[in-house]
Amino acid sequence: MRFFPKEFFCGFVSSQSGLIKFRNMKVAIAQLNFLIGDFKGNVEKMKRAVDSAKEENTDIICFSELATCGYPARDFLDFDNFIQLCDQAIAELTALTDGIAIVVGSPSRNPVPEGKDLYNSAYFLADKKILHVQHKALLPTYDVFDEYRYFEPASTFKIVQYRDKKIALTVCEDIWNIGNENPLYTTCPLDEMVKQKPDFVINVSASPFTYQHAQDRIDIVKENLNRYKLPLFYVNHIGAQTELIFDGGSLVGAPNGNIHAELPFFEEAIQYFQLKDIVENKEEKVQAKDKIELIHDALVLGIQDYFKKLGFTKTIIGLSGGIDSAVTTVLAARALGAENVRCVLMPSQYSSDHSVNDARALAANLGIQYDIMPIESVYQSFEQILTPHFIGTSPNVTEENIQARIRGMLLMAMSNKFGNIVLNTSNKSEMAVGYGTLYGDMCGGISVLGDVYKTEVFALAKYMNKDGEVIPENTITKPPSAELRPDQKDSDSLPPYDILDDILFEYIENTKGPEEIIEMGYNAKLVKRILRMVNINEFKRYQTAPVLRVSRKAFGMGRRMPIVGKYLS
Amino acid sequence: MRFFPKEFFCGFVSSQSGLIKFRNMKVAIAQLNFLIGDFKGNVEKMKRAVDSAKEENTDIICFSELATCGYPARDFLDFDNFIQLCDQAIAELTALTDGIAIVVGSPSRNPVPEGKDLYNSAYFLADKKILHVQHKALLPTYDVFDEYRYFEPASTFKIVQYRDKKIALTVCEDIWNIGNENPLYTTCPLDEMVKQKPDFVINVSASPFTYQHAQDRIDIVKENLNRYKLPLFYVNHIGAQTELIFDGGSLVGAPNGNIHAELPFFEEAIQYFQLKDIVENKEEKVQAKDKIELIHDALVLGIQDYFKKLGFTKTIIGLSGGIDSAVTTVLAARALGAENVRCVLMPSQYSSDHSVNDARALAANLGIQYDIMPIESVYQSFEQILTPHFIGTSPNVTEENIQARIRGMLLMAMSNKFGNIVLNTSNKSEMAVGYGTLYGDMCGGISVLGDVYKTEVFALAKYMNKDGEVIPENTITKPPSAELRPDQKDSDSLPPYDILDDILFEYIENTKGPEEIIEMGYNAKLVKRILRMVNINEFKRYQTAPVLRVSRKAFGMGRRMPIVGKYLS
Repeated sequence: MRFFPKEFFCGFVSSQSGLIKFRNMKVAIAQLNFLIGDFKGNVEKMKRAVDSAKEENTDIICFSELATCGYPARDFLDFDNFIQLCDQAIAELTALTDGIAIVVGSPSRNPVPEGKDLYNSAYFLADKKILHVQHKALLPTYDVFDEYRYFEPASTFKIVQYRDKKIALTVCEDIWNIGNENPLYTTCPLDEMVKQKPDFVINVSASPFTYQHAQDRIDIVKENLNRYKLPLFYVNHIGAQTELIFDGGSLVGAPNGNIHAELPFFEEAIQYFQLKDIVENKEEKVQAKDKIELIHDALVLGIQDYFKKLGFTKTIIGLSGGIDSAVTTVLAARALGAENVRCVLMPSQYSSDHSVNDARALAANLGIQYDIMPIESVYQSFEQILTPHFIGTSPNVTEENIQARIRGMLLMAMSNKFGNIVLNTSNKSEMAVGYGTLYGDMCGGISVLGDVYKTEVFALAKYMNKDGEVIPENTITKPPSAELRPDQKDSDSLPPYDILDDILFEYIENTKGPEEIIEMGYNAKLVKRILRMVNINEFKRYQTAPVLRVSRKAFGMGRRMPIVGKYLS
Repeated sequence: MRFFPKEFFCGFVSSQSGLIKFRNMKVAIAQLNFLIGDFKGNVEKMKRAVDSAKEENTDIICFSELATCGYPARDFLDFDNFIQLCDQAIAELTALTDGIAIVVGSPSRNPVPEGKDLYNSAYFLADKKILHVQHKALLPTYDVFDEYRYFEPASTFKIVQYRDKKIALTVCEDIWNIGNENPLYTTCPLDEMVKQKPDFVINVSASPFTYQHAQDRIDIVKENLNRYKLPLFYVNHIGAQTELIFDGGSLVGAPNGNIHAELPFFEEAIQYFQLKDIVENKEEKVQAKDKIELIHDALVLGIQDYFKKLGFTKTIIGLSGGIDSAVTTVLAARALGAENVRCVLMPSQYSSDHSVNDARALAANLGIQYDIMPIESVYQSFEQILTPHFIGTSPNVTEENIQARIRGMLLMAMSNKFGNIVLNTSNKSEMAVGYGTLYGDMCGGISVLGDVYKTEVFALAKYMNKDGEVIPENTITKPPSAELRPDQKDSDSLPPYDILDDILFEYIENTKGPEEIIEMGYNAKLVKRILRMVNINEFKRYQTAPVLRVSRKAFGMGRRMPIVGKYLS
């Protein structure tokens, strides 16, 4: 039952005034797309959000983790100049806090000489002052995360009072160790903070996307709700930073354990919430999550931001008629617009007619420009140079690689001449076993499908065709082939993709050893052969493009393997 | 003054016997070259060392950090199967400890669920038992080090008693925080251990080479000697692991503060020391260290181990007549033998006569095989394909890149056909500013000079010629040029290398910001231009070969930068 009109409780009531007992509060979640190191742009974007929030009579607006400098800024954090610019951004945001409070993530300096130089902090800015700074305690240092490289963990936990409310500020991972049940950590920040009786919790996050992560996020927020029975505002970053994609999907949790609201995926959003409504929550509101749809949308955003943030608009893709380049091209067209996608068909003497036809059909379906550059003449000129040096040898993978590299070179030439970025089309299965040519089909600015197994590429193609044929049916149904020698099929060198992908998943995602995988029922010789292929091809993956990450274990910064070694190899 | 013959104090005296009071002790330092994941090979190598040590009546033999599995094993440490093999190696080593104790580094499991799953431990094996396990407390997580990614830090410090001696075991970084003066850490393991009155200290290390590091190591060991006044055995790893080079140079420190012995650099060695001699030390024995000589020897080992450990013997190098490829070729010939080095001269229409002559002269000086493959015909066939698509455009960097990529492709074709590895010849200065072609001259299995500034490459060339001309004088004295267009000079696009290198050093090694560098007296516009070039070319460095690390800050795993960003760019 409401004694006063709702509006009465909101808005510009100073915590110092003491005239009215302040009961309700309006909190804004701003999930925005920041650019690493773009202090001016990031602050301007937050300023616009603060202006809107002021018009809405918002009490507190929340931005994501390390929002000032972008996440992950990586070794830029080692530059004193970079940290000065973070501090300056905080000063500029502090100046905006007349009548509104801002919660924002930024690095802060460790004032004592012992320990790392920085903290990963949540700032509470209000009344033109830094009212409170809470440092992050749980520093993820695994997979793609390197936080202990830069940050000292928090050792003190203090809540902040703003107006008549007490607020527990936390940073990302800090809420992921519920009651010390996450074996990675020995402390649980909220267990400490609840002793100080906060009214609600704010968590500023930059939690990168995987196709399981949106659900993981809901699960962990619910665990927090059930344990602490406090409203929780979880503000995530949105936007892609090279290989890492942040999907947004920020959450508001109600004390009754329900998800009160889930912000949209893969787009910027500002939403406003009355604390009272959250406390009185009756129903859960979450979005449906389909794995392939999530991957699709994530990859579109990943391409989009890679280009936009680097200042490029156009791409060039080698179209083979096969499924990987087809799916990559559709994603590119959806990310950049068909008018910004240019394809090159580069048939050789081993290309089948259907390949060229399938590639043309795809280009027509999408309405994209394409060029045809047969590579035979260049191949012959290479042959001419090399033949005298190859006397006494037989054709082998060398000749196949030359074809792949000629194609890579033509794409790079078009890229250099017209200022468009080559998209890499390798999938995770072939990257895993080294079924690709370094500097050939492994070239490109960013790898779109490098974290998508071949079986998932097929699922993506079918998803793309759900409302009518985009990818020619023949591209989906024909047996995969690199077409680098007569009648070549992937199945000549590799097991069927469903078996290959399962074994790879157990090894890469689940870090199972050969015995464990064999015990699951797979052929022992095959398992050993595949694991060996993964390990001896580390040198190729080292030199390929960064991979848009969609799974829990992507190649690249999250999987760091020795090149020289002798394990399962 | 000696009351008993020295021998009397050494050898097979059981700590249980109690018959003779044991006063002296013979300790062996074995700095050996391990291969990551090669448990069988690593254990066999240690077994041979133990056998020799037994013949020498040694009491304790010490191996380096994580010797069982090799260092750095990186994410292999996430595989339970890998850790089982480490445990098995420890069991095999334990079985050897009849009459001798073994100190060896290996991962050990954290028995409690909280915290990381592993410790980075020093095992003390004796009397066929694991007598003690001391975990590492200070886990380097900066530059090339990721130890907190895998390991839980030690929280307890216990010394071990063996025969009549009490020994403080430490692991690498544990002795680098003298009296808590290293601002990175808040604990000092030896400060804790000395309370238990150890007789001496053993430190098992895997401390990678930089040209300053041999001196750093002596300095830190001396600081420990001066503080604790105890004999100290510092056992370092030797051997290269892809980009990381371990130089050996293990140390024995005397309580009087002197370096009692320094083991050789860049080679395996086992040396024996009587504790009594160390205690009675009168003079310091250290090797002279010249920066360029150290870099030279490190790179030779780096090449050697990259090939040997991958099972290759032969290299192929593109020889341009310029200084980078010349220095790389000399290093390769010294590492692999002239008979295993094959060069390819790939002149274009822009190559000067002197380039081909200088390259031939070098090949003759070294007695290496070379082939000449003019690239004009292939270039023309590329031009033929591309011309219709390039209508309305002017020649630019595209055409230069095509030449560089044709060369890369020819080298890769020779590599694929003959099973030899291409050596990358890019230097640090050009890698820094992006003066190189991705998939062209930036190709190769490993980058030999990627951590050597151009001015240092010149110094290396002069060092190589100290006993007579190896590198043709003209290669050293002529102005550097990529020879990709008529009369091109590096100085057309870049400032003089001495200025460029100084600015790069301040930014890369010293993490100084633009204002700080300008304040040092460099031209503001130039500084900003160079820093921008470094940052916008991160995408190229991401896809190039691993770089043999010789400085405190090499490109690659020790310098992690965002590709997409807007900082100084």
